[in-house]
Amino acid sequence: MVILGIDPGYAIIGYGIIDTSKSNMVVDYGAITTPKDNSLPVRLEAIDASLKFLFDKYKPDVVAIEELFYFKNQKTIIQVAQARGVIVLACQKYCGNIYEYTPLQIKQALTGQGRAEKAQVQYMVKAILNLNEIPKPDDTADALAVAICHSQTSPSLNQNKV
Amino acid sequence: MVILGIDPGYAIIGYGIIDTSKSNMVVDYGAITTPKDNSLPVRLEAIDASLKFLFDKYKPDVVAIEELFYFKNQKTIIQVAQARGVIVLACQKYCGNIYEYTPLQIKQALTGQGRAEKAQVQYMVKAILNLNEIPKPDDTADALAVAICHSQTSPSLNQNKV
Repeated sequence: MVILGIDPGYAIIGYGIIDTSKSNMVVDYGAITTPKDNSLPVRLEAIDASLKFLFDKYKPDVVAIEELFYFKNQKTIIQVAQARGVIVLACQKYCGNIYEYTPLQIKQALTGQGRAEKAQVQYMVKAILNLNEIPKPDDTADALAVAICHSQTSPSLNQNKV
Repeated sequence: MVILGIDPGYAIIGYGIIDTSKSNMVVDYGAITTPKDNSLPVRLEAIDASLKFLFDKYKPDVVAIEELFYFKNQKTIIQVAQARGVIVLACQKYCGNIYEYTPLQIKQALTGQGRAEKAQVQYMVKAILNLNEIPKPDDTADALAVAICHSQTSPSLNQNKV
C-alpha cells in the first residue's frame, strides 16, 4: 500500500510517501513551499498543482492528513485552513481515499504516548524508516509521521476515514 | 462588466451576479448548499463543481468576495476557511480576476456608513437592484452586496485586487 502523508500548511506543506510493501517503506519526502510575495489565489493554485504532480508521480492508494490543531493567532489559522481546504479537495480529486489523524493519534502511534515531544516523534520517523538523518523541515518529518501512523493504525481505526 | 459576488461559507455559499451594463444590473442570485451528512472532501468537491457551473454559465469578468471576519468559535472558522480556500482557488482557475472586500467596506459602499446594520445593507441591495423582496437566505443578499460594492468602488480601490 502506497501512503501519501501530508502535514497541511500555507507557506510550507510537508509530504511523505511510504510503501508498506517495501522493507524500508520510504519512497520520497519533501516540502511544497509557496512564496510569501505571491497572492493568496496564486499560492493556492501552486499548492493544487504541486499536489497533482505528486499524485501523478506516486499514485498513492491512500492519503493520511493531519487534522488542524488550534492556533492562538486567528490570521494564521485562517491562512492554514484555507490552504488545507485546497489540499483536502486535491486529495479527493486525485485519490479519493482520505484519512485524518489528530496530533495526539500520531504521537500515540509512533511513540506509544500521546504526550510525546516533537523530537521523540521525529526520532521514531528516522528509526522506523532507517533514515540517516531526521528529515527537514519539521513539516516533512510530520508528514512522514502521519503516513506511518496510518500504516500502523488503519486496520483498527476506520473511524478516521473522511 | 459582469461581476460575481460571493459570500463564502461551508454549509451555505451565497452568490450574486450583476451586469453593470444593464439598468437593473441583477442577472441571477442564490445559494450553494452542502449537506451536513456529507464528508468534508465531498462537500468541498460540491462547492468547486457548483462554482464551475456558475462560471461556465455567466462568464463573469471579475469576482468580488467577502473577506473572512473573525469568529469566536474556532471549529466554525476552520470549516469556513477551508471552504473559502476552495472558493478562492475556483475563482482563480475559472476567472483569475479577484477582488476582496471587508464587511466594513461593503457596508460603507452600500449605505455610506461602515457601522450600518445588516438590515440596512439588505434594504439597499433590494433598492439598488429594484427587487421586489430582500433575497433569502442572508448569504445571497450578502453576495449581491459585495458585487454591488465592487461595482461602486473598484475604480478607486485597486488595492483590493488579490
